[in-house]
Amino acid sequence: MSDYKAPVRDMRFVMDEIVGLAEIASLPGYEEATPDMADAILEEAARFTGEVLAPLNRIGDTQGCKLGPDGVITPDGWKQAYKAFCDGGWNGLASPVEFGGQGLPETFGIAIKEMAASANLSFSLGPMLTGGAVAALLTCASDELKAIYLEKMITGEWTGTMNLTEPQAGSDLALLRSRAEPQADGSYRVFGQKIFITYGDHDMTDNIVHLVLARLPDAPAGVKGISLFLVPKFLVNADGSPGERNDAHCVSIEHKLGIHASPTCVMAFGDHGGAVGYLLGEANRGLEYMFIMMNEARLGVGLQGIAVGERSYQQALGYARERKQGRDAVTGEALVTLEHHPDIRRMLMLMKSRIEACRAITYYTAGLLDRAHAGTDPEQKKRDLFLAEFLIPIVKGGGTEMGIDVTSLGIQIHGGMGFIEETGAAQHWRDSRITTIYEGTTGIQANDLIFRKLMRDQGATAKVVFAEVYATAKALADSGKPELQAIGQRLNAALKAWREVSEWLAANTKNAVSGVLTAAVPYLNIAVAVCGGWMMGKAALAAVARLDQGEGDPRFYRNKIATTRFYADQMLPQAEAWAQTVMARDLAIKDIGNDLFD
Amino acid sequence: MSDYKAPVRDMRFVMDEIVGLAEIASLPGYEEATPDMADAILEEAARFTGEVLAPLNRIGDTQGCKLGPDGVITPDGWKQAYKAFCDGGWNGLASPVEFGGQGLPETFGIAIKEMAASANLSFSLGPMLTGGAVAALLTCASDELKAIYLEKMITGEWTGTMNLTEPQAGSDLALLRSRAEPQADGSYRVFGQKIFITYGDHDMTDNIVHLVLARLPDAPAGVKGISLFLVPKFLVNADGSPGERNDAHCVSIEHKLGIHASPTCVMAFGDHGGAVGYLLGEANRGLEYMFIMMNEARLGVGLQGIAVGERSYQQALGYARERKQGRDAVTGEALVTLEHHPDIRRMLMLMKSRIEACRAITYYTAGLLDRAHAGTDPEQKKRDLFLAEFLIPIVKGGGTEMGIDVTSLGIQIHGGMGFIEETGAAQHWRDSRITTIYEGTTGIQANDLIFRKLMRDQGATAKVVFAEVYATAKALADSGKPELQAIGQRLNAALKAWREVSEWLAANTKNAVSGVLTAAVPYLNIAVAVCGGWMMGKAALAAVARLDQGEGDPRFYRNKIATTRFYADQMLPQAEAWAQTVMARDLAIKDIGNDLFD
Repeated sequence: MSDYKAPVRDMRFVMDEIVGLAEIASLPGYEEATPDMADAILEEAARFTGEVLAPLNRIGDTQGCKLGPDGVITPDGWKQAYKAFCDGGWNGLASPVEFGGQGLPETFGIAIKEMAASANLSFSLGPMLTGGAVAALLTCASDELKAIYLEKMITGEWTGTMNLTEPQAGSDLALLRSRAEPQADGSYRVFGQKIFITYGDHDMTDNIVHLVLARLPDAPAGVKGISLFLVPKFLVNADGSPGERNDAHCVSIEHKLGIHASPTCVMAFGDHGGAVGYLLGEANRGLEYMFIMMNEARLGVGLQGIAVGERSYQQALGYARERKQGRDAVTGEALVTLEHHPDIRRMLMLMKSRIEACRAITYYTAGLLDRAHAGTDPEQKKRDLFLAEFLIPIVKGGGTEMGIDVTSLGIQIHGGMGFIEETGAAQHWRDSRITTIYEGTTGIQANDLIFRKLMRDQGATAKVVFAEVYATAKALADSGKPELQAIGQRLNAALKAWREVSEWLAANTKNAVSGVLTAAVPYLNIAVAVCGGWMMGKAALAAVARLDQGEGDPRFYRNKIATTRFYADQMLPQAEAWAQTVMARDLAIKDIGNDLFD
Repeated sequence: MSDYKAPVRDMRFVMDEIVGLAEIASLPGYEEATPDMADAILEEAARFTGEVLAPLNRIGDTQGCKLGPDGVITPDGWKQAYKAFCDGGWNGLASPVEFGGQGLPETFGIAIKEMAASANLSFSLGPMLTGGAVAALLTCASDELKAIYLEKMITGEWTGTMNLTEPQAGSDLALLRSRAEPQADGSYRVFGQKIFITYGDHDMTDNIVHLVLARLPDAPAGVKGISLFLVPKFLVNADGSPGERNDAHCVSIEHKLGIHASPTCVMAFGDHGGAVGYLLGEANRGLEYMFIMMNEARLGVGLQGIAVGERSYQQALGYARERKQGRDAVTGEALVTLEHHPDIRRMLMLMKSRIEACRAITYYTAGLLDRAHAGTDPEQKKRDLFLAEFLIPIVKGGGTEMGIDVTSLGIQIHGGMGFIEETGAAQHWRDSRITTIYEGTTGIQANDLIFRKLMRDQGATAKVVFAEVYATAKALADSGKPELQAIGQRLNAALKAWREVSEWLAANTKNAVSGVLTAAVPYLNIAVAVCGGWMMGKAALAAVARLDQGEGDPRFYRNKIATTRFYADQMLPQAEAWAQTVMARDLAIKDIGNDLFD
């Protein structure tokens, strides 16, 4: 069993030194986001997540959810924790003040979300999905629908869901079959079955707001004929209270590898005459609206990899500091704790450095979204948005793949005890395994990075990133400090590899599309490694500056520099290897058809 | 749910073209190991494992084992399957004829073991542990003990266990506390608790033979004071039948992440007056005897990574050939099966090529053990044994880490369905997770490779391996065929990296031990990648030769060449990256103490 203590110091360091919290707090609307406010909120969130959510994590894993005659039953303690979560105002932290939110920047929101997901990933998925639905309503709901639903969802009184997948339509949403029939009163009747619906039903709130992708009768085929509907579990009375039960039901829940306490529902819409639904925005633009939410959702899922990784790291570190086994290889001291052993230290440092690198990329991206939202210069806002969108597949793909690797190391550090479920280390690994799949697989992130984010502006945004990474590498080289120069050299070599393969891809996407697609995930791996190095490079530069100024805890800054160098030594050389793989594309297999595997 | 069809064709290819079955069949005692015999045995084993063991795999996962008042109860079908396994003669395939085995070379045995572990890893662990115990008895038991126990264990009438770990003594066996008191009749009374004892109890046989590490009263401290004892569950009557119940009891079983149907027992010896035991071999040499078995056990666990990987690959391939989703990126054809998508093909090829590379290393090592056992030239036998021992940590570390990676890809290919337990893809990943831990963690394999296998003869065996790899790379380069030359170039570059870091390590093990230990696993990764490339290079050369001769199925050989090139493009560049990491050693963290993680 493990405790969770939010890494507030590292979060604040990233917010202050890499994201630029002070600058974001100077943007219109974010004036409350002061350093003092950050201290207060992060400390309180750390207390709440550590004391209330974290102890439920293992209970959730062992009990899971059950489907009773009246719907899904969440594990013991879930209802109370959810109420406390909403009462604390955590649900609407970064939502607009006009609908009951607190209007704080996402730079704050992201840290709170990390804490919640670290403490209890299954729990955190409910608020995360609600947040996605809120974003969709803010984007495309009519004022009338906003007035009925938004405040209740932002306070958490009601939760939200996203209904995309159908049995025949997973990654390929063109295959959606759910349909919506217009009614005389302007509403619709929705029919269809949706699968993998997170928190599609539960017993924590008295209503649930489903957002459902479906086709209108006259809709074109494919992805351009999909509309978005709001389908509440209970129709809403004129006074805002839940009324008649709608024809939207959870008919079964899945038995999953992980996140047992997050109900994954098969939802039947319209099996008893039709589910009442309301069109959101314009007809046939549903997928577009979903993609607006998708960026936020993907940032959130990338964060989950970091969050579960952090939890696993804390538990592994705790074990390594407690468990005595073996002799110190250097001093010869008998029976030392595991953390003395170089290979255990290697694994702990690999966990720590990869988590910190991904945290920095993710928070930096959240900061860009804040700047894009509240900035004052339209050109700069556009640039920040493009930069954020460029980084999002890197955050999602990189954070989640890292999460699986790191939680596996968390098991390994425990030795045989790691394989015993009661230890709790295995749960993190099982929980993390969904993150590279939902909200778009790693392959889909890689394609998004290349075909949308890299190509849409002919590499202009990529060039901005390259220039920024180069500036960091140059600052490291110019620092006059050997340890920073060593980092700068590795970063520069990795950046060179990334640039080269980006140019290679640009020249080949048209005439060698299969080869580029084969190379997409290795390309994503390069981007993740380099962006991690870039962020850690910024961190090391900031740490050196603080040390030079004699400010703060020198041990923290010294460790940050060491962690950066460790990351550079372990992760950055791989960028060059993956570059070779990218440029090998599919030459090995391209002339062989589907009998390749015979 | 997945079927399992043993990859007999690839197994035979490896046996014939890489291991040299014909040569092994010419060694004294192995005359029966003809190609015809191989055909017959492999086909029959494929049938048995596919029809009898494979269907029980998921049942075992969902039911698991239970501890009843009379001991451990195995899942439905286990007893019958075990009886059929023994009746078929599979248990003693490679054991000596004089004790009821079939005396076939391990080159055969390894293929049968792979099939059993693919079909049902949990089931296969029982016979594997028995095999380890048999090897120990052959090494160090008195003729009297051999006469009582060996034949029954080789036929499978009784099973065997290995009792090493204690709560305070995992990787560090110096901490063992179990003790043995000599009795007037020459027997001993054994006392102590052992944990993580695989098949420590079960209901499939009427006796179980425990091999137990314990200390004699006058034994020196540490690893030099450990002796090995045979402790039967039931004492054996003069007529060989099981008699009085011995004081060796399973007191609880673990609730584990995977291999649910393999009972992992806490064993209490001597809680009711002392368990009757018999000293095996000489006093205080127990660990030495265990290490003799350990090589075989590690080879077997490396094989498990391959076996579970193969099962996962077959299931993922089946799904990719069935599930339709998305448009073909090259032809534009709508709604194609997953195997058309380049990223799915990348993942399938990565699975296939890494499995085949590890299979070839493992079988090659088994062949070396056969040559070392039955060869006629003492010098060559010694060289073959050293070579096998050098390769064993590479097989163990490489096969098991590969197994985890590959079964994770197996989930990924299934998308959301991979996360649903009923699909069965997740079980392979969960089952594989123990393999990098038991029989020595990956870190321990890496240390074994460097400090024992690389250093014990001042790198002489490593130089033999380097020369062999070089010869393969040169043959590829000299082939005149561009696809082979491309493989040869990558192999040569990776070999160069391996050589350089080996020399670097040799120069630094004494004065920078902490750095070398930090670099050990990255070093192991290099060895695995290069040895995989070496074996696949041999495979590609053989395939080209067969194609040139117009023999066999050209599709199989063409695919083998493509698979080799794919492996070379994806895996071999990483050797150069890890070489950079090795030589960075622990410079980032070496001056920081245990506050590194604060």
